[in-house]
Formats: sequence, structure tokens, C-alpha cells
Amino acid sequence: MTSNQPSTALLTDHYELTMLASALTDGTAQRPCTFEVFARRLPDGRRYGVVGGVQRLVEAIESFHFGQAELDALARTGVVGNQALDWLADYTFRGDVDGYPEGELYFPGSPLLTVRGTFAEAVLLETLVLSILNHDSAIASAAARMVSAAHGRPLVEMGSRRTHETAAVASARAAYLAGFGSSSNLEAGRRYGIPTMGTVAHAFTMLHDRELDAFRAQVQALGANTTLLVDTYDISTGIARAIEAAGTELGSIRIDSGDVGVLARQAREQLDRLGARNTRIVVSGDLDEYAIAALRAEPVDAYGVGTSVVTGSGAPTASMVYKLVDVAGHPVAKRSEHKESRGGRKLAVRRHKDTGTALAELVFPSAGPRPTPEPGDRELQIPLLREGKPVDGLPSLTDSRQRVREALISLPWEGLKLSKGEPAIPTTFLDEQP
Amino acid sequence: MTSNQPSTALLTDHYELTMLASALTDGTAQRPCTFEVFARRLPDGRRYGVVGGVQRLVEAIESFHFGQAELDALARTGVVGNQALDWLADYTFRGDVDGYPEGELYFPGSPLLTVRGTFAEAVLLETLVLSILNHDSAIASAAARMVSAAHGRPLVEMGSRRTHETAAVASARAAYLAGFGSSSNLEAGRRYGIPTMGTVAHAFTMLHDRELDAFRAQVQALGANTTLLVDTYDISTGIARAIEAAGTELGSIRIDSGDVGVLARQAREQLDRLGARNTRIVVSGDLDEYAIAALRAEPVDAYGVGTSVVTGSGAPTASMVYKLVDVAGHPVAKRSEHKESRGGRKLAVRRHKDTGTALAELVFPSAGPRPTPEPGDRELQIPLLREGKPVDGLPSLTDSRQRVREALISLPWEGLKLSKGEPAIPTTFLDEQP
Repeated sequence: MTSNQPSTALLTDHYELTMLASALTDGTAQRPCTFEVFARRLPDGRRYGVVGGVQRLVEAIESFHFGQAELDALARTGVVGNQALDWLADYTFRGDVDGYPEGELYFPGSPLLTVRGTFAEAVLLETLVLSILNHDSAIASAAARMVSAAHGRPLVEMGSRRTHETAAVASARAAYLAGFGSSSNLEAGRRYGIPTMGTVAHAFTMLHDRELDAFRAQVQALGANTTLLVDTYDISTGIARAIEAAGTELGSIRIDSGDVGVLARQAREQLDRLGARNTRIVVSGDLDEYAIAALRAEPVDAYGVGTSVVTGSGAPTASMVYKLVDVAGHPVAKRSEHKESRGGRKLAVRRHKDTGTALAELVFPSAGPRPTPEPGDRELQIPLLREGKPVDGLPSLTDSRQRVREALISLPWEGLKLSKGEPAIPTTFLDEQP
Repeated sequence: MTSNQPSTALLTDHYELTMLASALTDGTAQRPCTFEVFARRLPDGRRYGVVGGVQRLVEAIESFHFGQAELDALARTGVVGNQALDWLADYTFRGDVDGYPEGELYFPGSPLLTVRGTFAEAVLLETLVLSILNHDSAIASAAARMVSAAHGRPLVEMGSRRTHETAAVASARAAYLAGFGSSSNLEAGRRYGIPTMGTVAHAFTMLHDRELDAFRAQVQALGANTTLLVDTYDISTGIARAIEAAGTELGSIRIDSGDVGVLARQAREQLDRLGARNTRIVVSGDLDEYAIAALRAEPVDAYGVGTSVVTGSGAPTASMVYKLVDVAGHPVAKRSEHKESRGGRKLAVRRHKDTGTALAELVFPSAGPRPTPEPGDRELQIPLLREGKPVDGLPSLTDSRQRVREALISLPWEGLKLSKGEPAIPTTFLDEQP
């Protein structure tokens, strides 16, 4: 996000401003409050979630202020009156934010973000916080399963066309966070330094009078190390022409349709027969984590993944909520019949065996008591903002990629299963213990 | 989209630029081409789709140009070489675009957008076109089903927190297009003039020492016509306090959890007993089109819909594709085994009975022959851009809302069913007829 990025302040629900206006009338706006972000459950029987979007959120909070354009819009539509407008004109978030670092795993009830400030300043951030974390975590969580299913083979994110045009940029980032090697999205390359890749679509072959002409033009422009798309017409003819155009030093072929497992095997045999033993096989076309896993025994060198990753593979949102848990030092919680929440600010440690395998997510009141420390405990929250300013030395995207990798290695092996089941480790709330 | 909106040019897949670079080497870049957008199928057994995002697309095409920042990014990462960079520096789309007007229904194979230009200028738009149409159409299509299920009762879109922060703005717009009455998203209000609404979250009640204090503060700030959220603690106590704070002229109560049908009935009885006969009941909390339909017999006055609408209620993307169908006047099509497409530019008319009920989507080659005209035929494509400039008098968002309403009325009654089934009307490809 650059300095000329427009304000994020109206990426907000109307009700946050009417709450502000109402709380200003009786002075409660200034009460010190703590809000907590957590997910009540993991979607779809998933075993873990990956926290995504933290760095984007820190930047978005910094550019959350009400300029004249935003104030005029609010005044014109009468969303709030003058008292609130005056207050908003001076608004900067000056509170503290702690949270799970980006790339950390989370489980049901993990206190993955804690926002402390006055009610007024903290309530305004609800929508922005949730939009960013829910979206990026949904994509990162799906992507991590694909990375795990690919078992070390590289993955390319190529789903931009299947999601909103700027959500696509964040999706590319979240997939990369989770371990994808590259993306097709050029803005993600520019903005986040993510490696981008891509060669041609079927249109490029069809543009030419003959498939061979298309391959020759591509090799001339991009070199023999390029990826030729061989399934516009007949695949085995396509492969023969590809080698004719590029020679046996051809970098890769891509197969985008059909039973890609069978086709990959046939393609490997044909390439080897033609002497192109180092030419890689890239497959794409409606792949998700299950299809990727099913291709493990096939001679596939890389996967291109589109729709499934940018839509969270069936879970397009992480369903995180932003709940008020403390007012002026007093725990608060909603107590209606059907949605119960735990009051009070909470912290968490992840407990591990001596071998490094995770055992449990221990969640406890920040006011104590803490769980009796054990050697394998790891504190999960880190400071993100202090008095509204980002803390120095926040993890980079590279750090966060490393964190995902390490965290996944720490899961018990059942926790990496793709099938539906229980969370990889249980969440234990220490206030509930006898 | 305002004039200081950043360029949309890098919201693009890497491969479009490498195709450009390759096509420049052999002169095919200048071949006149036609690309067509269509969906092979409707998701999930849906009966119809709603075209969304056309106005946003027209604006995004206008701001699609490569400035120094974009060119520097491409040069730095070596995406393309100097020949392509020079070409891009001068790029403006100068072609023609025709398409279904926003709010029109579409069916499998409907030629809902046609882009004509040189290969180079038209291929570059693929990702942007698809991102916008796939996202906005997915949301509009889900939203239309909810509007239909609500049977005239108003719907409020409140899903911003469940989707990417700028996708949220487009989602609010798409839901409004499909007939939602308002949105919680303030930026959608500012940018598109969509009515926004919202009052308070549970946090506002919990901020206060007593529920009654919260209600009084809200009534003081927002007037008795506000909506009081009554389910933070006990609902019937909440309703009694709401009337105590606001009087029997209270505008609405909102119930956000539990079995909202049962609770709405109990609330209606209690409100009537208290003399608040005109106080409306708004329900929210994980509603989708099925839940809305199930509430038809209950005393609900309005629905707040979040997650399900912004995630397309199970179909977060419309799966539209952008296919090259004509090169220099010659129809082209991919002919590999598994994904077959029809070559040549196509037009469509929707045929209707005398009563106005739609009968079929007739798709035919623009080169002819046309279907024999009948009185109930309606031509579906309209000009959107000519020589790269938006056509005068394109439909406004208000026009497009009206179009959705009218189009839905024209469907055979089976076409409005929520259950899975066949498209409401068949798509007939006239080139296939004997």
C-alpha cells in the first residue's frame, strides 16, 4: 500500500458510525475497551487455519482516517450528525493491537487479534479488520492444504479471473504466503515482490494459422525455456510440434484440460521418447487440493491452480468475528441463548511435545492464571501496533512463509489430512478448568 | 471510479503480456480478433444468472493504460522486453465492445460480452473483464435468488466483513443491482449512491452498564425510529426495555441469533401486546435464500444478509470464460478432446410468448443466418464501447435494477425455483439446427 493509497475509512459498515454517534451522546465512547478476533469453528471439517492478511491490516489501519471527501460523504447522506463528524475529523487510531503473526496456524477460539483502545476508536475498525483477515485467511488456509497435497512440487496461483480484481491481488499474496511459488497476477508482483509467471493461453495458438507457427513465435520471443501449451488441438501432435519448435531443451509443456493424470503419463513417455527428458510437465484446469493429491503418483512437475484457491476451495470466508470482551477492565460477553462468547482479554500458548509436535492450543485470561509453563510452550500473540504505530521489525512476507512451513511441520500427522475431521489440536480454555 | 483511480493495467495475468510479446515478434499481434465471454454452465443447478459489473467494467477499461510505474515494474521484473514495453507505453484500447446490459439474465452459452480489436489490444483485457464480470455476476445472481425468496420484503446487504475489503464495495453494488434495498457499506454509498443503513452491534449494548442505558443512548442519538438490537441477553426482556426506552413508536427491533422464525413470532406478539404495532422486526444471522424462503410465513419485515450474499451463496464465481472466436473474419475454436467451444462471433435474442414469458435464448452467428423474427423477440447485446470510448447513454444502476426486475418477471415460474434443476429457458444454438 503506497502513501497515495486512498483512505480505507469508508470500507466500513454504517453501524460503526451510528454506534460512535450514540456512544458520544452519553460519554461511553471514551471507555477503554478490548475487542478480540477469533473463529468459532474451522470451515468444512478443516484441521487448521492459516492467519493471513496481518501485514495488509497493519497498513490499512495506518491509512484509516477521515479526510474531507469521506466527511462530506457522511454529512451529505446524514449517516451521523455534527458531533460525530467533528470527532471523526480528528480520528487516528491510537490504541494497541496484538495478534498471531501472519502465517501462524489458528484453531477454534484462538485469540488471533486483540485491539485495545477507547470504544470509539476500536469499534470503527471492526469491518476493515474482519474483511482483511477473513479474506486473506480463507485463501491462505485453502492454499496451505494445496501446498501440503502437492508434496514439494511447485504451485502457481492463476485464479485472478475468478475473483474480484483487487481481491485477486490479495489472493495471490495469501497463496504465496501459504507456500505457492508464484502467481500470474502482475500487480501482486509489483506490490509485494511475488514472482509472477505465465506464457500463453489457447487464444495464442488459435490466433496463428498453424499450431507450429504459434510455438515458433513464442520460442522466438520467450526462449526455449518457455512453457508451450500443447492441448489446443490434439495433445500428442501438440507435443511433437512443441519439440519441433523448441528442441529437446524445451522448458515445459502445459496441459490444461482432460484427464490430466493420464495425459501427463502419456506426455512424459512421449517427451522422453523424443529426447526431451528434462522438459517439465505443468498441469492446470480446475485443480483443487483433492485433485492435486490424486496426481501425486503421476509425472507432474508443477500445478497451476485457479478458481479453487481464490475462492477458498469451498470456504471463501474464514468466519472470524470481532467481539467486545472487556470494558474498563471488566470482562463482558453476549449471553443470549444461541451464541455464547467468553469475556475478558485472552492470550494463548501452543504446547508442544519434546519432539516439536503440537499438542494443544491453551487459551487463558490475560489477567491470569497462566498455564504452568512447560518447555515446549510457545507464546502466540506478538505486538503489532503500539499507540497506533506499527511496531518495529514486524515479520516480512518471507518470514511469514517460513512460519507457515514450520507450523505445518509441527502438526500431528492426522492434522495434515485433507479429509474432514476434528481440528489438528484441541483448544483448551483454561478458565474452564477446575 | 474517480479520475485519480490508479491504472487497472496490472490487474492482469502475466501471460497476457507474454502473449503480446510473442505476437509482436511475428506480426500476428495486429490481426483483428473477436473475443467472447460466456459461461458454459450455471453453478449448482441454478436456473438463471444475472449479468453484473458491466458499468464497472466499462470504467475499468477506460483506466487501463500503462503509466511509468507499471512499465517500470514490468521492465524491472523482465516480464517482457523492450519491443512490448514500447508498444504498451502507447496502449489504449481502441476496439469495440458489445454485451448484455447490466442486470440482464444469462444462460449457458449466452454471448454476454463481445470484444473486438486487434489481438494485442483485446487479449490484454481478459483478466480484468473476467474478474469484474465473474465476481459481480456471482453476487448479483445469488442476490436475485434472495430477493425472489423475500417476496417483496426488503433486504439489507451487510456482508462486507466476510469478503475482501474492496470486493465488499462491489458486492454491495451487485446486491443492490439485484434488488436489495440497501447496504451497510459506506463506500458503496459514497461511490454508487446506494442507500446505506445500520444501527448497532451487540458490542454497543455490552459497552453499557445496563441494556436500558444502551437503548436510551441510541434513541437519543438516532431517534425513536431507529432499530434496537434486542438479543444481546434475553430477548423478551430486551424487547420490554426497547419499548421502555423508545416508546411504542420504536422503528424496528433486530434479532440476530437463534431460531429467528420462532423468535420473530414471539417478538411480534410481545410488541403488539405492548402497543408497538408498527414496530418492524428485522432478522439477520446466517440467512441465505433458503432461510429467507422458510421465513415467508413469519412476521418478519426485513432481512439482513451477510456472508451468503457476498460469497455468492455457494457459487463465489460465475465461471465465465473469455474465448477467442474469430481471427480476421475466420471462426476459430479450441478442438481438444474435453472442452469444446463454438467458433465465430455470436449474437442472441430472447424469444418470448405473447404473454411476455421467456421461451428460449437463441444464439446465432453474427454473420447469419438470423432466426426468423417473431414478435416476442428481444435483441440482447447492446453497444458498450466504440473505438474504445463508452457509448453515450449507457444504462444507469437504476435502469439496471429495473432490468433485473423485469427479466425475472418474464421467466416461466419454474425458473424462479430455488431448488436445483435445468436453466429456466433452453439455449438454442442456431448453427446446430438442420
